[in-house]
Amino acid sequence: MSSSRAVRRGRRPGAPDTRAEILTSARGLFAAHGFGGTTMRAVAAGAGVDAALVHHYFGTKDDLFLAALDIPVDPRIVVAPVVAGGPEGAGERFLTAFLSVWDDPEVRPSLLAVARGVMDPAGHRLLSEGFLPVVIEPIGTALGIDRAEHRMPLVASQVIGLIMLRYVFEVEPLASMPAERVIATYAPTIQRYLTGPLP
Amino acid sequence: MSSSRAVRRGRRPGAPDTRAEILTSARGLFAAHGFGGTTMRAVAAGAGVDAALVHHYFGTKDDLFLAALDIPVDPRIVVAPVVAGGPEGAGERFLTAFLSVWDDPEVRPSLLAVARGVMDPAGHRLLSEGFLPVVIEPIGTALGIDRAEHRMPLVASQVIGLIMLRYVFEVEPLASMPAERVIATYAPTIQRYLTGPLP
Repeated sequence: MSSSRAVRRGRRPGAPDTRAEILTSARGLFAAHGFGGTTMRAVAAGAGVDAALVHHYFGTKDDLFLAALDIPVDPRIVVAPVVAGGPEGAGERFLTAFLSVWDDPEVRPSLLAVARGVMDPAGHRLLSEGFLPVVIEPIGTALGIDRAEHRMPLVASQVIGLIMLRYVFEVEPLASMPAERVIATYAPTIQRYLTGPLP
Repeated sequence: MSSSRAVRRGRRPGAPDTRAEILTSARGLFAAHGFGGTTMRAVAAGAGVDAALVHHYFGTKDDLFLAALDIPVDPRIVVAPVVAGGPEGAGERFLTAFLSVWDDPEVRPSLLAVARGVMDPAGHRLLSEGFLPVVIEPIGTALGIDRAEHRMPLVASQVIGLIMLRYVFEVEPLASMPAERVIATYAPTIQRYLTGPLP
């Protein structure tokens, strides 16, 4: 698949200063209190605006969280084909979607910045209380797999390790491995975590 | 297995100031230049001593690297039973050895400090040019598996993701999962990376 449809283009509406102040407030609160511990009302208060304006500019709290990450793709659009195909083969489709954005030289720098932010102690909750509930766990729920809340963290544990070695630490042979080979290597692991027998 | 035999006890020999100066020099050089880019001679020069003294106090460069990490276990002793049992079942033994130290409340704080050091941009080479060649890759070589240099980074990619979710980010259900269940969950993955068919 191509990631081009998921790439945001052009300016979004809203007064630039107010938008920027809302995003700054949101980033600080998500990093300090996690996704669950941050309310739209608190983000609005931090920016000195009304909560209705935050909703008007950014939509839902999920939307605001993804906007605050400042990545040029919407991961929910990227993973849509993973869900649409059903549980069978979902491991391979998940990796294909995932590598299509991480291997895109226009997108990777932003994703690396987010990965580094997650690894910083101040940003740890971005993963456990942001990416997991907003991006990863809904995939399992939408696929209709059993025990999604148990299985999706397993998927995340392999995908995060792959990100670290291939993209952050650039460890060979993973760093230079063609995408198709990475997908074929990891697809059985992800598929087992999604739908296989587990203890 | 118990990790008690791998835990260092008591003081090691050597004048405390000189030892500390050598370790400070080693930590700075390993972090800046990686394991491969650091010589015993440079460590000695940084501490203002002769290279022979570094060897006398710390042994080989592998030994110095592990001493510089300041963890209360020698990972080479911890993984010895993994290697001794041969390739069959090595995935399960690897995870058993690995969890025996990470789940030990006396050892975990030191390991977490190392993990956070690795995630810091200044410490990235500790993994790719330290842990992988000194601790992880020799396991594959000693097991006599084919393409160890290809397989061991795959093992590392899963183990690092597991460390991140279970110990650093403390994501449930992994954070509270009994060790036996973690081992049973991940053993097929590690075993396939060690000895299974790969593309």
